[in-house]
Amino acid sequence: MRIIYFVGTAGSGKSSLVSAYKEWLDNNGIDAVIVNLDPGAESIPYVPDADIREWIELREVMDEYSLGPNGAQVVCADLMAMNIEKLTDVLGTYKTNYVLVDTPGQLELFAFRKSSNVIVEALGKERSMTVFLADPMLCKTSNGFISTMMLSSIVQFRLQIPMITVLSKSDLLSDDELDKVLTWFADPDALYGDMLDNDSDPQTVIGMELFKALEGVGVFGDIRHVSSKEETGLEELYAASQQCFFGGEDADIN
Amino acid sequence: MRIIYFVGTAGSGKSSLVSAYKEWLDNNGIDAVIVNLDPGAESIPYVPDADIREWIELREVMDEYSLGPNGAQVVCADLMAMNIEKLTDVLGTYKTNYVLVDTPGQLELFAFRKSSNVIVEALGKERSMTVFLADPMLCKTSNGFISTMMLSSIVQFRLQIPMITVLSKSDLLSDDELDKVLTWFADPDALYGDMLDNDSDPQTVIGMELFKALEGVGVFGDIRHVSSKEETGLEELYAASQQCFFGGEDADIN
Repeated sequence: MRIIYFVGTAGSGKSSLVSAYKEWLDNNGIDAVIVNLDPGAESIPYVPDADIREWIELREVMDEYSLGPNGAQVVCADLMAMNIEKLTDVLGTYKTNYVLVDTPGQLELFAFRKSSNVIVEALGKERSMTVFLADPMLCKTSNGFISTMMLSSIVQFRLQIPMITVLSKSDLLSDDELDKVLTWFADPDALYGDMLDNDSDPQTVIGMELFKALEGVGVFGDIRHVSSKEETGLEELYAASQQCFFGGEDADIN
Repeated sequence: MRIIYFVGTAGSGKSSLVSAYKEWLDNNGIDAVIVNLDPGAESIPYVPDADIREWIELREVMDEYSLGPNGAQVVCADLMAMNIEKLTDVLGTYKTNYVLVDTPGQLELFAFRKSSNVIVEALGKERSMTVFLADPMLCKTSNGFISTMMLSSIVQFRLQIPMITVLSKSDLLSDDELDKVLTWFADPDALYGDMLDNDSDPQTVIGMELFKALEGVGVFGDIRHVSSKEETGLEELYAASQQCFFGGEDADIN
């Protein structure tokens, strides 16, 4: 059993990708189950096999603790770690190849709170990886692209498990926009030039340092773009996850 | 009129610091007004002079658009930019030295969506700065410290205005913990050593690159720690904001 966390900022398309990827796996005869870890999810495009909302539901926490959505989301994130045993019990009843984990809507509630580490450890850190969803609307500008890629680096640093970054909802970009973003991934010099063109003020020194960090972290190179809507990029995502888990070898994945 | 945005992850103490800082300014005869920009705020410890909730309220958006809290927060963030004129109209009626802006509970809703740039431009980018609140519970570990400081660098890069980072809610740390965190700020080598001690796996390369970026960005050096509860660090925050706005000169701040 291998575990894949789908992580990204609010609106980056996590739930849709989990749903589309599950369907792709089904169609290719690969067994997978879905875990919903978002206590605030109200409509999800799949039927979860395990669901944190069975034990923690955002609206209930709001009522019970008399909290607004902000405070309740923080409490939910912390309660999650305390209920992790119930989740691992449910998962223990499944015999499957992949567990697809749909993480909370707001990235920071997962990535920047201690409960995420507790969850990753409990489900098995050594058999886990992350798929980071880069929001296409944010990635369209050089500033947004660099910010998103830095955010993905921080998430990888926080969770300390292998990560694949995908450009999500690529159907929202025009062909030219998609080309531009893909070029930035493949050619750091192009990104650097565009960044300097757009940020012509003293703040650029930060951009330069962030850019250098991206180079060091090794962000540039391969990138997959996926569209849940058009069902594209899912096979590439599978190939990349195989590479990540097994280094490209055929493997017994139970 | 100068504008100060208080930005930080959920639970980092933004509203409390805005409230405590306003009181400190009042007590020192310095005029300031408060703007609440959080459509999801349900109880805030101050009386706002302008309030985004007059036009956008999270619970109403949830009902009106039949959205859960996640989706509604994203919609609210985008609606904010469309209502900015109403806010600038209200602010135009005030003659004050400082506008303290309390930003949305979840950092990513402010920092990673386009509306934040629209708002900063509309209120006057050249007379604005950010106070980034570092969450003490996150900053206690070297991994969390580096992650938080990188996040603050990304926010600065996104907003492109000067920034002061403060260690928030310092009353939550023991003396030893506070010493450790302050040492990390002053002495990059100490941080680097602790990071290597704690992250003894291949992911450390990311930590090293993030660390180098922090050095390049110029995070190390001065740090202020504040406690809204104990009302400490507020004078230092004021001095730092003066330095940021006026380079330490006495200035006509209207």
